[in-house]
Amino acid sequence: MNNLLVAQSGGPTVAINATLVGVLQGVRTSSKVDKVYGAKNGIEGAINDNLLDLNDLIRDTQAMDTLTYTPSSALGSCRYKMKDWKVDEEPYKKIIDTFKKHDIRYFIYIGGNDSMDTVDKLSEYCKIHNYDVYIMGGPKTVDNDLNLTDHCPGFGSAAKYIATTISELERDINVYDIPAVTIVEIMGRNAGWLTAASALARVNGGSGPDLIYLCERAFDYDKFIDDVKAKLAVKPSLIVAISEGIKDSTGAYVSDTMSSGAVDNFGHKYIAGSARALEQMVREKIGCKVRAVELNLMQRSAAHIASETDITESIMLGLKAFNCAVNGETGKMAAIKRLSDAPYHVEFTSVPVGEVANHEKIVPMDWITPEGNDVTEEMMAYLKPLIIGETNLKYENGIPKQCKLY
Amino acid sequence: MNNLLVAQSGGPTVAINATLVGVLQGVRTSSKVDKVYGAKNGIEGAINDNLLDLNDLIRDTQAMDTLTYTPSSALGSCRYKMKDWKVDEEPYKKIIDTFKKHDIRYFIYIGGNDSMDTVDKLSEYCKIHNYDVYIMGGPKTVDNDLNLTDHCPGFGSAAKYIATTISELERDINVYDIPAVTIVEIMGRNAGWLTAASALARVNGGSGPDLIYLCERAFDYDKFIDDVKAKLAVKPSLIVAISEGIKDSTGAYVSDTMSSGAVDNFGHKYIAGSARALEQMVREKIGCKVRAVELNLMQRSAAHIASETDITESIMLGLKAFNCAVNGETGKMAAIKRLSDAPYHVEFTSVPVGEVANHEKIVPMDWITPEGNDVTEEMMAYLKPLIIGETNLKYENGIPKQCKLY
Repeated sequence: MNNLLVAQSGGPTVAINATLVGVLQGVRTSSKVDKVYGAKNGIEGAINDNLLDLNDLIRDTQAMDTLTYTPSSALGSCRYKMKDWKVDEEPYKKIIDTFKKHDIRYFIYIGGNDSMDTVDKLSEYCKIHNYDVYIMGGPKTVDNDLNLTDHCPGFGSAAKYIATTISELERDINVYDIPAVTIVEIMGRNAGWLTAASALARVNGGSGPDLIYLCERAFDYDKFIDDVKAKLAVKPSLIVAISEGIKDSTGAYVSDTMSSGAVDNFGHKYIAGSARALEQMVREKIGCKVRAVELNLMQRSAAHIASETDITESIMLGLKAFNCAVNGETGKMAAIKRLSDAPYHVEFTSVPVGEVANHEKIVPMDWITPEGNDVTEEMMAYLKPLIIGETNLKYENGIPKQCKLY
Repeated sequence: MNNLLVAQSGGPTVAINATLVGVLQGVRTSSKVDKVYGAKNGIEGAINDNLLDLNDLIRDTQAMDTLTYTPSSALGSCRYKMKDWKVDEEPYKKIIDTFKKHDIRYFIYIGGNDSMDTVDKLSEYCKIHNYDVYIMGGPKTVDNDLNLTDHCPGFGSAAKYIATTISELERDINVYDIPAVTIVEIMGRNAGWLTAASALARVNGGSGPDLIYLCERAFDYDKFIDDVKAKLAVKPSLIVAISEGIKDSTGAYVSDTMSSGAVDNFGHKYIAGSARALEQMVREKIGCKVRAVELNLMQRSAAHIASETDITESIMLGLKAFNCAVNGETGKMAAIKRLSDAPYHVEFTSVPVGEVANHEKIVPMDWITPEGNDVTEEMMAYLKPLIIGETNLKYENGIPKQCKLY
């Protein structure tokens, strides 16, 4: 028997189930795989032999369609980071036990940085120990910060949600004739790609955000207040887009000026509140009406406004990862290589996962304007194709249909 | 010449332009009106003779279609509240001057409570002074708190956004196996209709919010913590939906425990932060992962997920207001009367605007469960039809097309 195991990990996106569906479409149309299983809660499911049988699912075309448009990880997720096998071999042994028990010949792990690290370590371990399994990574991250792929599944849909929302907020805040500043906080601790995507609200002639501050550039409080005052002098209602992770020149988070200092269960510093900190500052220093808006979890889970380009490419990446695995590749990640912006042409490749793991691809400094409060035409050319197209999402009783696997 | 003036006022919704389009469709298909104008920024446009010529617009079918799905008030808005004419007659005289100058025979004012007060006062003034004009109100309010109409334009679309978003958040937060509480703050200072609509996330079998607290019931902090603990004992990830305006038994806003005490330009107390206050409390008293999410301006401006039922009925209400005006009614508001829930049947009526103005229709106490942490089946039967159907919104370059009138 040659069976396949698939798992998902990391933070939810709108497209991670589309990549799962791509893998399942590969299984469904190939003669190389006998049975397919899903590991529940990422690599933890492989360690603990907690598998879901997906062999009925792949026969159900309708369920697969619904799954494609269901946000977040249908197989569950984890934040488990594997240690080097020389430090802690136990989890590696347990995974091999699971592989042996279920005749797993192929393993595809869909996720972000930490998951690619797992693919790297596990494929190395199997090679060294001559265990015959082919392990591929499927990229996923709303932050768009994975190395060696032009962009990441989930990013385009989040970008579409952000651009649409900013264009709707622009209509909302422009109805009164009084000065008002709306500060929109967008996900991104270290990479400002999602914040940059707010500029896409301009594609049909809207003014979009009046000011955009990415976390890649040191945030200057005085310059910010000057920028806002200068814009208010020429129009009454402003939208300012900021990354949650903006920091001043000393590296201190803007949010820390208000943050509770609480730490989440994964040891990450709890940073929400850059927009609130700046809201307070504008109120004190300018005195006009001001409001902080956080796009929060909605920006990564709004499947109802997914980008068709994103979803289609996410399926293709699942299929590419599948094809690589059954053709004997291991320790690699399926990736997108852009051939041209307009017309937008891409091809699907596989890249060494070791060069992806533990890197963060941030926004190039020359894609931010010299003033530091907007993005350049190069950034716009990069972003524009990623939000094109609407999906064929189905509704039932007024809300989108979803597929649950457990 | 018999000309018509139309204006929009109050907070933005997704459906207020659909009602404008209904009025314009009336003009377009009637022989009783010669020309049509829009007052810019609500009644202020009528006072200051600041009118937009809409006679080209009504010949442009495509622009009218785009306008239907454009959020917020295309004619601008205001928060101007007219005093009694015996106290301050000047604005009344100026409005009559504008009416005379442009041969305005019909005036339709689309808005909420304050706008209906204007319709009431102005129509009374015109009657008393024998000025021959027919003034009708078109209802609009995301809060759904207008008297004498089954529900309000804009509410159904906001309800659809909220239900969809909660169902997406449910997928998002369920991927990990660790205890986590997500507290979603929903608009509503005094009326909890929008918060109640979060329960619609359950229509396809989802669990929806695990706890729902409306502002109509006194909020009990101890009971809340007990409720959360009890739910966490049976499932790891909870969603709690709360109204922004929840208050304790003394009438003190929950948000005041954290609020800055700042006041907005209209003299309203600035209340954002009920969810943040409760987030802090859960962190201190329970200690699990907890996150506050505010649906903020998005819930009233998310035209990309408008309810077809809402948009269609909003058009009908504009048309009804138009028909009433040209048939000699004045000092009334177009309204919806529900005939049955299932099948969902309604008819359009006109009601005395004096009985609408300055009343707030809050949620009946017996539509909240005895425990005070959920809504009843009666509420669900009321809400369900209002989110049915998706609109034929058009996209351009990946974001929704919009229509700007100035």
